[in-house]
Amino acid sequence: MRLRGRKGILEALEGQPELVVLEPGKHRGKWRELFGNDRPIHVELGMGKGIFISKMSARYPDINFIGVDRYDELVRRASDKARNEWQEQHGTEPSNLALVRYNIEHLEDMFEESEIERIFLNFSDPWPKSKHARRRLTHPRFLEKYATALNDLGEIHLKTDSVLLFEYSLNRFADEELRMRNISLNLHADGPHPDHVMTEYEAKFAGQGMPIHRCEVVVGGKALAVHREMLKHESIS
Amino acid sequence: MRLRGRKGILEALEGQPELVVLEPGKHRGKWRELFGNDRPIHVELGMGKGIFISKMSARYPDINFIGVDRYDELVRRASDKARNEWQEQHGTEPSNLALVRYNIEHLEDMFEESEIERIFLNFSDPWPKSKHARRRLTHPRFLEKYATALNDLGEIHLKTDSVLLFEYSLNRFADEELRMRNISLNLHADGPHPDHVMTEYEAKFAGQGMPIHRCEVVVGGKALAVHREMLKHESIS
Repeated sequence: MRLRGRKGILEALEGQPELVVLEPGKHRGKWRELFGNDRPIHVELGMGKGIFISKMSARYPDINFIGVDRYDELVRRASDKARNEWQEQHGTEPSNLALVRYNIEHLEDMFEESEIERIFLNFSDPWPKSKHARRRLTHPRFLEKYATALNDLGEIHLKTDSVLLFEYSLNRFADEELRMRNISLNLHADGPHPDHVMTEYEAKFAGQGMPIHRCEVVVGGKALAVHREMLKHESIS
Repeated sequence: MRLRGRKGILEALEGQPELVVLEPGKHRGKWRELFGNDRPIHVELGMGKGIFISKMSARYPDINFIGVDRYDELVRRASDKARNEWQEQHGTEPSNLALVRYNIEHLEDMFEESEIERIFLNFSDPWPKSKHARRRLTHPRFLEKYATALNDLGEIHLKTDSVLLFEYSLNRFADEELRMRNISLNLHADGPHPDHVMTEYEAKFAGQGMPIHRCEVVVGGKALAVHREMLKHESIS
């Protein structure tokens, strides 16, 4: 990553307060006010360069999106990406998106209980050494934070090329008695999946024939009830 | 498979009633009597040539094993394998093993409710076409039969090289709200796993670097309580 001077980047972030949030703690419990509506809030933890969150926000204008990353430079790149995506798709500035510079270690200081509806974890760092397992974003200490922040319709959507992180995550979900759904061991086996916005990593890996793993976790009580009802009426082949 | 005349094979099976069971329905609810003790009964559905069940029975003399396959010739081969394995390991005939020729479509006619403690599904036919999904041994209609036959400590242990069958099975376990444990997407990643008796397929596939997938399902109520208790006292890394 070519880095500009720290000061220059910070100035670029501070110059776009309608899109970039540098002190998310101030909005805890008040994200609805920031967006100016009551629409569901979907959050990507570790947005990287922001391709996924930019495309999602442009594709689903009726949902509010928050992309989080801890690095100034990544937030700056994501802001460029988001503006370009919205210009291309809608000819306007993003209206349903907040890009947040934050260390999600302290997620509970960013969101009030039940404030958000979905968490996306896309190609999170697998932290392959077991002594670093605590840093994996599906470690139980994080799952607990997610369960608190998510509302009654809450879901976690995990996508990764890492067999290790996926295996670890499935076992943690199972151990925590979280309800999994739509587990996929090779998401793009039949070509790129039209329903899924691809991240940059994903397009690259899938293009090389590397399997992408994906899983949804149904966390909220109401989401779970709806899912169970659906299964009842579905004839599973 | 080189097939002998059907008659010759049947004679070979009928000639070893202490090991081979041709009419398992007669033992429904009475397998304990057949084994002459109250030890737990572990069953492999689709034992193929019987390598796994033969090795397991020789390795764990305090457990009773039942290997099931629908083909006479496979049961015959398994009986040879089992006798050889026991001669090598113990210098005796197998004492804790029954090899059963049966079509497990009718599993409920073979076992009474809560009669067995573990079901092994090793490298089951993946039936890759979705119109054949009903034949997969983890289809809900089979899972229901297993849940009935398994006792309070009951578990299902699934092992397969098929990504398709494994993905299908994980989703069915999740949909049926069955509790998964020890999910592995590459069982022998660090070399052959010492705790796991390998089937013939498995040794071949693992040797070629093809990942073996494995998952345990905790079915019995008491097994689940024990598992939960263990997790509580375990610090998950």
